[in-house]
Amino acid sequence: MSAALLTHPRLVTLEGGEGAGKTSAITAIREQLQARGHEVVLTREPGGTPLAERIRELLLHPQEETLQPETELLLMFAARAQHVQQVVRPALQRGAFVVSDRFTDSSYAYQGNGRGLDVDWIQDLERRAVGLRPGLTLLLDLDVRAGRARTVGRDLWPDRIEREQDDFFERVREGFRQRAAAEPQRFRLIDAAQTPTEVAASVTRALGDWLDGLA
Amino acid sequence: MSAALLTHPRLVTLEGGEGAGKTSAITAIREQLQARGHEVVLTREPGGTPLAERIRELLLHPQEETLQPETELLLMFAARAQHVQQVVRPALQRGAFVVSDRFTDSSYAYQGNGRGLDVDWIQDLERRAVGLRPGLTLLLDLDVRAGRARTVGRDLWPDRIEREQDDFFERVREGFRQRAAAEPQRFRLIDAAQTPTEVAASVTRALGDWLDGLA
Ligand SMILES: Nc1ncnc2c1ncn2[C@@H]1O[C@H](COP(=O)(O)OP(=O)(O)OP(=O)(O)O)[C@@H](O)[C@H]1O
Ligand SMILES: Nc1ncnc2c1ncn2[C@@H]1O[C@H](COP(=O)(O)OP(=O)(O)OP(=O)(O)O)[C@@H](O)[C@H]1O
Ligand SMILES: [Mg+2]
Ligand SMILES: [Mg+2]
Repeated sequence: MSAALLTHPRLVTLEGGEGAGKTSAITAIREQLQARGHEVVLTREPGGTPLAERIRELLLHPQEETLQPETELLLMFAARAQHVQQVVRPALQRGAFVVSDRFTDSSYAYQGNGRGLDVDWIQDLERRAVGLRPGLTLLLDLDVRAGRARTVGRDLWPDRIEREQDDFFERVREGFRQRAAAEPQRFRLIDAAQTPTEVAASVTRALGDWLDGLA
Repeated sequence: MSAALLTHPRLVTLEGGEGAGKTSAITAIREQLQARGHEVVLTREPGGTPLAERIRELLLHPQEETLQPETELLLMFAARAQHVQQVVRPALQRGAFVVSDRFTDSSYAYQGNGRGLDVDWIQDLERRAVGLRPGLTLLLDLDVRAGRARTVGRDLWPDRIEREQDDFFERVREGFRQRAAAEPQRFRLIDAAQTPTEVAASVTRALGDWLDGLA
């Protein structure tokens, strides 16, 4: 694994807080890419391979004990290393687009801004265990309470991270927004307070511009 | 978590290759420490907490796919971070001795020398996710084939690491020996080719000297 960080134009990621609409938006993205004749691999993090999904299970539903922040970060990157090498790289190499529901930016926001772990450590893990950055990242930005309100029905049994308090999610949101501001060429900020139809339109417009730029 | 590396005199570790006799030697160590009136916590890696044992399961018996070297390293340190913070530190803080069957040196030897991962990365993980070094490390050194011969009966279904080839285990052994040579104040090299009685005698002699030095 090289320690360089390569930006890949066909790796597209969706980021944002709980209930922002990432998973909902992914269908529109797939249809748009397929309409243009591209192979599309939809995937998600943490997870995306059978082993990485087992790690996701440990992360979101630990049964026995407090998960330490350091353990959380290392499990996230263990799952990501596996996902990137087993799924993402092979798909990119054969010419497909890879669309991931969360990726490394979520670790900066949740484990960095949310848990307060050292950003230098996260950068080092990104270089050593991932080595790859998305060409395009769609950040679905939404007020924390609004996101929570959307997931209420779904989350009768919230997972370990969903059980965090609002101030945690405020730090996460702010972390995402800072990253978007620092890398405007990669990020598109999407107003996720819009209706589902409007969000889908904003997302496909951003992706369409990106694809036109690649052609 | 501080990035400093603290050496703790009551943390004692057993290291060595497959079949060297680490697990067998641990009983003699417990008896010796208890005879001197110390509380002893016996533990092992990867593992030592319920969650870390679930990570061990992923490491040693992955069901689905090739485990990437980077994933292996990160899972080892995820389990270790959990083990250190949930078990090792609390036990040391209340005055107990902690005796661990494998610890961070195994990551240097297996993931560093064995898999060829960057030693700087391992050092960084040790500082950030462990922060603690044993005062005394007993290295049970044994010829690779002799170790293999000992585990033949036990290992009708060898785990993922036991299935490696001899050249992998030769690099692991050499890695352990180099670490012992570099830190003679911490390591005691035990000739594990001796009979079990002789190995136990060598181990208890080394530990006895260490304890006398602490008193
Ligand atoms: N623009 C929207 N307006 C109102 N409700 C929405 C909108 N987008 C999605 N929803 C609804 O909000 C809920 C959360 O959406 P979704 O699961 O897509 O979010 P998410 O970002 O994937 O959340 P998580 O981070 O929890 O996976 C769902 O019930 C979904 O139907
Ligand atoms: N000094 C010895 N001479 C001969 N056989 C031994 C000796 N020590 C242990 N054995 C036997 O060798 C086998 C391996 O010993 P043990 O399980 O203690 O090794 P280990 O270092 O813990 O191995 P592993 O790394 O696989 O856990 C056991 O069957 C044990 O009874
Ligand atoms: Mg979702
Ligand atoms: Mg053993």
